[in-house]
Amino acid sequence: MRATLIYGAGDVRVEDVPDPVVQEPTDALVRITTSCVCGSDLHAYGAMPPGAGPARMGHELIGVVEDVGSEVATVRKGDVVVSPFAFSCGTCEYCRAGLQTSCPTGGFLGMGGSDGAQAEAVRIPLADGTLVVLPVAADDALVPSLLTLADVLGTGYHAAAQARIAPGDSVTVIGDGAVGLLAVLSARLLGAEQVILMGRHRDRTDLGREFGATDVVAERGEEGVARVRDLTGGQGTHAVLEAVGHLAAYEQAFGVVRPGGVISRVGVPQYEAAPVGLGSLFRGNVTLTGGPAPVRAYLDRLLPRILEGAIEPGKVFDRAVDLDGVPGAYRAMADREALKVLVRL
Amino acid sequence: MRATLIYGAGDVRVEDVPDPVVQEPTDALVRITTSCVCGSDLHAYGAMPPGAGPARMGHELIGVVEDVGSEVATVRKGDVVVSPFAFSCGTCEYCRAGLQTSCPTGGFLGMGGSDGAQAEAVRIPLADGTLVVLPVAADDALVPSLLTLADVLGTGYHAAAQARIAPGDSVTVIGDGAVGLLAVLSARLLGAEQVILMGRHRDRTDLGREFGATDVVAERGEEGVARVRDLTGGQGTHAVLEAVGHLAAYEQAFGVVRPGGVISRVGVPQYEAAPVGLGSLFRGNVTLTGGPAPVRAYLDRLLPRILEGAIEPGKVFDRAVDLDGVPGAYRAMADREALKVLVRL
Repeated sequence: MRATLIYGAGDVRVEDVPDPVVQEPTDALVRITTSCVCGSDLHAYGAMPPGAGPARMGHELIGVVEDVGSEVATVRKGDVVVSPFAFSCGTCEYCRAGLQTSCPTGGFLGMGGSDGAQAEAVRIPLADGTLVVLPVAADDALVPSLLTLADVLGTGYHAAAQARIAPGDSVTVIGDGAVGLLAVLSARLLGAEQVILMGRHRDRTDLGREFGATDVVAERGEEGVARVRDLTGGQGTHAVLEAVGHLAAYEQAFGVVRPGGVISRVGVPQYEAAPVGLGSLFRGNVTLTGGPAPVRAYLDRLLPRILEGAIEPGKVFDRAVDLDGVPGAYRAMADREALKVLVRL
Repeated sequence: MRATLIYGAGDVRVEDVPDPVVQEPTDALVRITTSCVCGSDLHAYGAMPPGAGPARMGHELIGVVEDVGSEVATVRKGDVVVSPFAFSCGTCEYCRAGLQTSCPTGGFLGMGGSDGAQAEAVRIPLADGTLVVLPVAADDALVPSLLTLADVLGTGYHAAAQARIAPGDSVTVIGDGAVGLLAVLSARLLGAEQVILMGRHRDRTDLGREFGATDVVAERGEEGVARVRDLTGGQGTHAVLEAVGHLAAYEQAFGVVRPGGVISRVGVPQYEAAPVGLGSLFRGNVTLTGGPAPVRAYLDRLLPRILEGAIEPGKVFDRAVDLDGVPGAYRAMADREALKVLVRL
């Protein structure tokens, strides 16, 4: 079959690879019908060291089950399914606690030797704990929105849920990428009243307003912090959802958070050390939280909202390509010409 | 009157200073009957730069109200009161939310020109929001325990409360100072089942066991982390209460926290930058929280436990001096000869 491989920074190719097969009795084989490119794919695309590749890419998919191992009980051949970007057993204490991204037998698609989802097919380990059957056809008009359950919607929702947003709260969202925009939508779902979106791409922040942002701040750094403080009576917001992952975004976060507030990060940090002392977090009893989103934990509550038309997260897709168009999709997203690119197979 | 002043590292003196007077209609004047020396006082004692002093010291007190301003309504002359180390208005949104340490009109005793509590008397600003009347005489046998409400018990309790310890949780407490030991007691109050105390002073960890520690780990660094992991089936604990404030303690904290767990810091960080990325907090969705404890918020729930004899936090005092003995008390605590020294006036 054909699959997407990254060979190094800026070098993404679609090539022939061996067909996946059921290896474990808990595996499912899924023929992919829709995939997409993620903002986090761009980290490798921007900075993968030479010689580190080739590696399979992609971790978001909707598809049709082709085959299952002997122990798989909850999905069967022909089912239309969505897969979270992390696979997980569904039964251990972490999975039961809703922290599937820490499942000791789990892992991540497109990492550590697992198949990638920008491909014709994929082997999904731990299928019972991972896959969710969708009550629609693989070409349903809702598919783009349903595909966001695989990562970006669940990740934006994780940011909001970890921040324990309560009705009436004020929230700053840092980043106008797909995750940031869906963090706006999620904050509103949880009852946030004021949602300030920090982003400087007008077409994106317009979509952010559509998703419920009440204010947009285009400025960054100290100027951006000052604007948010102006908008909040000098106090900052109860929650800050950081959907970028760069140190500058984190510094912005502790600049706009209110004493006693929460900074919730879902952008994979591109830094290890950062300020956490008296001058940043400690003095104001600010809480720092977040991590890889256990999107499987949120699927059951978000799926119905999409099916009933209450939310339309698929609006983050502003371009669609076929599998051969994937290298161009990376380029377009890296160049900020596209927000998020759908891949139709 | 006489009060304690610090002139520089290692240089604490008891000297004559002007008597405090009521300056604002919201002030109370308190004649101090019992005070003490805090672990946090030792930061200045160890490292105050030359020329930064002299500064008043002390922020924990029980005393008798001598005079009140015209607007003070909840305390009156003759009342025996305890004062939190932070004074606060009691009516703003932060105070109402239980975050009195962020009260915009509040402040801290012994800082920013406020009177210190290692003295014969003190002016307490915002008396109605700050002072709590005690239903005992100033020389009651419960006074040492009641004095811990001013800081160390409330601070240990804050660590546990911010970590959202739930019945059955496992907890690591880092630090066998008075706050660490009272964090052990607090974790048990909140229902923690396994409480691992990391400390290497046998007399202190013995008191920690009395307060409810189920395990003691004397090793530090990687060796200490490995021991805690051994004690928790390799998983680490749900909560880590960090009551030291040095970077090494924070590094220990993320070494022993379980995925999805909480690191709650109440030791004032003696560092600003620290690891918070994929390798420390992010990968396991670890939450970092804590800050200056709003001990006023916990007073109403902890006071009855002391009065009814359910807890005896005053056991952290292992020495008592009079005011002239304060410089010696600093020395004894800095040299680890004393855990915490009571000052009787």
